[in-house]
Amino acid sequence: MERLGKQTIKIDNPVTILETASIVGPKESEGPMAKYFDQRLDDEFWGEKTWEKAESKIIKETVNTVVSKSGIPSSEIDYCFAGDLLNQCISSSFGLRELNIPFFGVFGACSTFAESMCLGSVFISSGAAKNVLCATSSHFCSAEKQFRFPLELGNQRPPSSQWTVTGSGAAILSASGDGPYITHITPGKITDMGIKDANNMGAAMAPAFVDTLITHFKDTGRSPSYYDAIISGDLGHIGKDIAIDLALSKGYNIKNNYNDCGVLMFDKETQDTHSGGSGCACLGTIFSGYFFKQLKDKQMKKILVIATGALMNATSSQQGESIPGIAHALAIEV
Amino acid sequence: MERLGKQTIKIDNPVTILETASIVGPKESEGPMAKYFDQRLDDEFWGEKTWEKAESKIIKETVNTVVSKSGIPSSEIDYCFAGDLLNQCISSSFGLRELNIPFFGVFGACSTFAESMCLGSVFISSGAAKNVLCATSSHFCSAEKQFRFPLELGNQRPPSSQWTVTGSGAAILSASGDGPYITHITPGKITDMGIKDANNMGAAMAPAFVDTLITHFKDTGRSPSYYDAIISGDLGHIGKDIAIDLALSKGYNIKNNYNDCGVLMFDKETQDTHSGGSGCACLGTIFSGYFFKQLKDKQMKKILVIATGALMNATSSQQGESIPGIAHALAIEV
Repeated sequence: MERLGKQTIKIDNPVTILETASIVGPKESEGPMAKYFDQRLDDEFWGEKTWEKAESKIIKETVNTVVSKSGIPSSEIDYCFAGDLLNQCISSSFGLRELNIPFFGVFGACSTFAESMCLGSVFISSGAAKNVLCATSSHFCSAEKQFRFPLELGNQRPPSSQWTVTGSGAAILSASGDGPYITHITPGKITDMGIKDANNMGAAMAPAFVDTLITHFKDTGRSPSYYDAIISGDLGHIGKDIAIDLALSKGYNIKNNYNDCGVLMFDKETQDTHSGGSGCACLGTIFSGYFFKQLKDKQMKKILVIATGALMNATSSQQGESIPGIAHALAIEV
Repeated sequence: MERLGKQTIKIDNPVTILETASIVGPKESEGPMAKYFDQRLDDEFWGEKTWEKAESKIIKETVNTVVSKSGIPSSEIDYCFAGDLLNQCISSSFGLRELNIPFFGVFGACSTFAESMCLGSVFISSGAAKNVLCATSSHFCSAEKQFRFPLELGNQRPPSSQWTVTGSGAAILSASGDGPYITHITPGKITDMGIKDANNMGAAMAPAFVDTLITHFKDTGRSPSYYDAIISGDLGHIGKDIAIDLALSKGYNIKNNYNDCGVLMFDKETQDTHSGGSGCACLGTIFSGYFFKQLKDKQMKKILVIATGALMNATSSQQGESIPGIAHALAIEV
């Protein structure tokens, strides 16, 4: 492992993303990305009595799918890194409690999937593990209930609000395999620019995205054009525009090859999600469903994935606190 | 890094626990461990308007203390691993948002401190980092409010309940230094034996403790007598007794050299905490305050630290779920 610059780690022993899996909810199943996901659900409950239990089932079945697709018996997966948006990350701990794999709980809000892959990469490259599992989930209904209002109230949502993706993404990282490889990780710092509007997460997280983005370029000596695609987690339409402007103001033009999973997930004209998608599963499913396949098919050869997270809760907003953001970057090449 | 048996990692490049710090609340300041902590607070608010803000201040100041004691400028600390019990780990993210150190959010409930040290050890031993910071916190008032009842209700607490420790523990791990060294880590699996009583956490977590304990012995070929002390996180009086019996039933006698931080924190006769202490800060402060000094002074030379966590939340209990437990082990030697 070699440290580059301030924050970046060059992964020297190769870490292959061996396989991914994704399951999404009904609204995501009607969006432009639908065909890339392994499974599309018809309703938000999936036969469970509560949204929280449904979310646990979604992450559980996504993990079962990725293990099955990988052909690696779960007994050969050394560690699991997982987390989610529910209080105390119960989707992961309940969904994965029968997994029988040593478990590291991770919390990076919507950056959790990238955080878990950063940690997993270091474990594999260092020889601490041969195979690791990374997983995350989110659920529109459980997230609205927990962070905002009971859905039954039928509250209006402001135009800057984003729609939490219902779904789960999972990946198996391995010391064996022929790529796509995680070549660098740039774990991010907490960045708080004083945004207090919990209905404008994109604005709150964009500065963290740009901080990690520019740090990654400085640490590696690369520029935006090095990558076929730069992908953020869930800045949505408003956050994406802010990120482009903010990066440009610091001398980095990402307009040509940058997109956001929150923008990609839903159709802006027909699906009425306002500023786009969000949630741990936003990048989790789109990376697992779409970008991983693009890399496997060599449609893309070098991508930079930067998942973003808003590190607040309902109480902190009620107490007048601003919203700290974070963003973790993974450079992936075939 | 060498893998031993099923779950254990032998840390080959030495990882020194360079320095620790601890701050505790008023009740802990009246307990038998009081003299070992760096700072003892007179009240639960510490000048803040809410318990959540107070908890953030406690972890912030504990981190400032450990950085100051270590003599290492914070610019030379490569990564921070931290988490806590508050929803979405806001104590850590708000308390440490000005730290300007790349941040990995960790959630292992009350096992968080050991989990962060497991992750930090792998980062240092692999060369991914030279110095890392590990930190956690908990707060009796914010935890009661969030997990059980508003304190203003004055609810009675059942005899099996434990008292969440108000405080924070922090440690700096380093590639340089002359010990105490983290020599092995045994990250634990989620273990759920069907306990549903959220007022009997010790019973819910004891099986996870015993699972990790025995796995550690099998993986390393060691027996309980190898260690001067075996320490669990926060099983409390009831959980400790269950753990001793359960380990004995599987052929491991830990009665002579095992104790629990929840038992050590408060005086059973005079402090009226029922089954003892709990919370992320329970092991966090007692390890940082007491055991680290015992190791530095060579009063103890080999200890096995196993922090335990209950991976539930208030909603999961209301939905009739049982309580999954987890336990992560660290072997530490001078």
